[in-house]
Amino acid sequence: SPMHDVDCDINHQYIVHCRRENDEIYMPFSFIKKYFEVYGELQSVEGQEKFEFSHSYSEVHQPPDVIRPDGIFMSFEHYNVEIRKRVLCVTATEGVPMSTQWEPAGHYYPIQIAQFGLSHYSKQIFEGDPEVTTLLSGNDLDLDRWLVASKTTVHSLFDKMRLSDVIEFQSSDSLTNQGFHASMKEGSHFAVTMDIKFISNGSITATIRSDSNTFRVHYVFSRRLISCSGRDIYYGLGENHLGKWIHLARDIDLDLFKGLALKCSKSRKTKDFTLLDIAIRGHGWVDNVTISSSAHMDHFYDAANWFLNNQDTRGGWPIGVQRKLIPDVMELAPGWYSAMAQGQAMSTLVRAYLKSNNSVYLHAAENALKIFEISSAQGGVKARFGDTYDWYEEYPTTPSSFVLNGFIFSLFGLYDLKQVASGEALETVTRFYNEGLRSLKAMLLMYDSGTGTFYDLRHLTVGLGPNRARWDYHTVHISQLLQLSRMEDDPLFARTAKRWDEYRVGKWAPHN
Amino acid sequence: SPMHDVDCDINHQYIVHCRRENDEIYMPFSFIKKYFEVYGELQSVEGQEKFEFSHSYSEVHQPPDVIRPDGIFMSFEHYNVEIRKRVLCVTATEGVPMSTQWEPAGHYYPIQIAQFGLSHYSKQIFEGDPEVTTLLSGNDLDLDRWLVASKTTVHSLFDKMRLSDVIEFQSSDSLTNQGFHASMKEGSHFAVTMDIKFISNGSITATIRSDSNTFRVHYVFSRRLISCSGRDIYYGLGENHLGKWIHLARDIDLDLFKGLALKCSKSRKTKDFTLLDIAIRGHGWVDNVTISSSAHMDHFYDAANWFLNNQDTRGGWPIGVQRKLIPDVMELAPGWYSAMAQGQAMSTLVRAYLKSNNSVYLHAAENALKIFEISSAQGGVKARFGDTYDWYEEYPTTPSSFVLNGFIFSLFGLYDLKQVASGEALETVTRFYNEGLRSLKAMLLMYDSGTGTFYDLRHLTVGLGPNRARWDYHTVHISQLLQLSRMEDDPLFARTAKRWDEYRVGKWAPHN
Ligand SMILES: [Ca+2]
Ligand SMILES: [Ca+2]
Repeated sequence: SPMHDVDCDINHQYIVHCRRENDEIYMPFSFIKKYFEVYGELQSVEGQEKFEFSHSYSEVHQPPDVIRPDGIFMSFEHYNVEIRKRVLCVTATEGVPMSTQWEPAGHYYPIQIAQFGLSHYSKQIFEGDPEVTTLLSGNDLDLDRWLVASKTTVHSLFDKMRLSDVIEFQSSDSLTNQGFHASMKEGSHFAVTMDIKFISNGSITATIRSDSNTFRVHYVFSRRLISCSGRDIYYGLGENHLGKWIHLARDIDLDLFKGLALKCSKSRKTKDFTLLDIAIRGHGWVDNVTISSSAHMDHFYDAANWFLNNQDTRGGWPIGVQRKLIPDVMELAPGWYSAMAQGQAMSTLVRAYLKSNNSVYLHAAENALKIFEISSAQGGVKARFGDTYDWYEEYPTTPSSFVLNGFIFSLFGLYDLKQVASGEALETVTRFYNEGLRSLKAMLLMYDSGTGTFYDLRHLTVGLGPNRARWDYHTVHISQLLQLSRMEDDPLFARTAKRWDEYRVGKWAPHN
Repeated sequence: SPMHDVDCDINHQYIVHCRRENDEIYMPFSFIKKYFEVYGELQSVEGQEKFEFSHSYSEVHQPPDVIRPDGIFMSFEHYNVEIRKRVLCVTATEGVPMSTQWEPAGHYYPIQIAQFGLSHYSKQIFEGDPEVTTLLSGNDLDLDRWLVASKTTVHSLFDKMRLSDVIEFQSSDSLTNQGFHASMKEGSHFAVTMDIKFISNGSITATIRSDSNTFRVHYVFSRRLISCSGRDIYYGLGENHLGKWIHLARDIDLDLFKGLALKCSKSRKTKDFTLLDIAIRGHGWVDNVTISSSAHMDHFYDAANWFLNNQDTRGGWPIGVQRKLIPDVMELAPGWYSAMAQGQAMSTLVRAYLKSNNSVYLHAAENALKIFEISSAQGGVKARFGDTYDWYEEYPTTPSSFVLNGFIFSLFGLYDLKQVASGEALETVTRFYNEGLRSLKAMLLMYDSGTGTFYDLRHLTVGLGPNRARWDYHTVHISQLLQLSRMEDDPLFARTAKRWDEYRVGKWAPHN
């Protein structure tokens, strides 16, 4: 019997055009997709077409088998923080991402900076050491790869501060000057690092080719963090860095990508670039110029150092933008702290301490504890649920919001610090961690919707509908539970992770 | 372009056969129905076929506009308690349903009895007075409709206890004897009521015809509550009722229906019966025999009187069966109290008091309060959530279960009693009600799954998956919230009812 048309009356609210064949009704996927929030794609495998129906769109990444304070952070080797649209660029002044989220003018968002650092740290462990080519070293003046333009001088000298031989260069600081430059043989590597001190004005330029177009990324002494003009992209090195040694670590391909996003050029290409040349101009000293497949540890330390340099007297990293979770109902004025920022900073700083053995990082992590004890109402991050459970707020709103993933990330920070702290700090961090863990065990299942998870508990505090977590947050929840199952003996975490993973493929909790 | 076959790969787990036409994929409803737990039916309207897709299967009934302690109870005019499969029968000893839920041998379940009483009370208000025909009255001995078999005598006499004229009858008590019987002209009415006292053995028989079959329902002095033999069905009147005035109110069609469910006869008919005859035999006194379209108030008082006669010294109605919410995890040993039973008993007793003006009902309702103050651990019904909120448990398990609908029904009972109580009872009931309301406002949204509701909070107390409420419980939740919105000023109730009603048609809470 042939297929014929039949109207489907959806809840007596509207009509969808279906098909009928014998006793079976066929409903169009365009309706199903929208109505049930599912996904599907027609695939062709070896000439055979197949429709791939997916309940959700996100994959769960596994945390390491053993959770160590110097190990991969959760599953952050899969994170690519700086590629996100809401990252304006990785600034050349600080080497950390600048966010345009909630504030288009841009701001340093400590959570994003920590995630940038922790993702690069995790990638370093996951990927192993990068391929590194030294282009220039003061200890061994080999200029084979370098070209020296006219009116440019280059020579070696001993730097008493660095206790090392370095290269002094001197040329015109005009961007039209080729200066002192190296052609790249490693055109598919983009991570350029160097130690450099400009004595007077100067700049660095990377030249990149894509098909028929040539782009130039310039690092210059300008106040503007990033700007563009045609195929020229400019990153400011920070005027206050003139006359000082700086360690620069740039992913040139990322810098180009963020520059192209400013749309001075019509090119929208995002791959198949070749790095042609690195040029240095003006007057200054330089050492340890390298080209590598990646510079993960440099980025990691840039993040860790940002936390060192920007911690306030309360031990916190205040966030300078207004945040509206629910306009007029849950808002934070600029200057708020985030338990997630404090915790992720701890995870970053503890790793920096363990890698560098420099206790300044440990002390910064310990100082970050104080904010955990201050209630949201008093400008801190601590909420209470039902006058019974402490909760460390990612967004310390009043009324409380109880965001789950941010709270667990704050616990991860406390856990990392607990492994290395001593004395009073150890007592404090242990108390905060244990209290938090107690709250988590009691409250975790409040986030279980039976078909997915809730992002927060705003429905309980303001009496509106629950805020269902989209699938990528749901998978973060699952990864976090898997990590907790490795940190703690309670079977609650593994059991819940399993059920939440089943929700991802449409296996719902039973109804009565 | 024609429709052709394509495999749908469901979450990489199994294959469903779909159809494709151009860019549209059509999925079979047999899959959608099972996967998404939705409903659908092919309808033919004026020769035009249409597929009715329904997200849920339950309708929301509106409670009254004004909530009064003598009004319709919620939307119970739509309830048909005794028709349910888990009701063995309405016993002829007590006039209330006997439940086979959780105990196939049968038990009196106070919640079911209250709902039986409250539904008949509400139907009485909703339907208005029934059509009543008096078949026999001691005050006016009119035997036109009655036939008197041989060796049977009937005469009028004055009963000093009832201070009324009544009819004395005397005949053989054999069931083969026709006794003293009336033919029915009101064959489609089935509610038979009478006041009767058997001095020695005797019985009452209703004869019912369906097509070619004749059935007989006998009310006899037997210990067996209900039994059958071929087309004869027997209800026990209770041996201890011999020699006492009893008020009998039977829905003959229900009694037949429950008898047929015992499967002595092959007949499975459930409608189109005709009541032919009522016969009385043996030796006794009778008065006020009626045949009516319904006997709602008789059933209501049977329920209210059951509560009077079965209240224990703690003011409770202990439930004599074991209840396993989760085997080995949440169990109740026989003898447990239920806040829902206490509350629904109050709603029943308060209505009986207001209708009868008999304060014995009010005092029983007030005595029912005491159990609310005793914790579950101590054999009462009071749980605590997070050491902050009192909760009156339908099932006072340890750990707590926090069943929502039972708690709200207990609040309705307290609310009804609060309208009529005085003195210390008023103080107590007001305190219990206010505490409960405070808990409900704080905890209500814990039951909001974003796509439906949870039946209880077992997931929070035992750390397992949540227990999603099936749609009929979900609609009870909505009706309860609508009633609360009329009882209390807080806009939370109407707002939540609206959202929960939207879930019923697939409008989910947003995700982030
Ligand atoms: Ca050197
Ligand atoms: Ca009378």
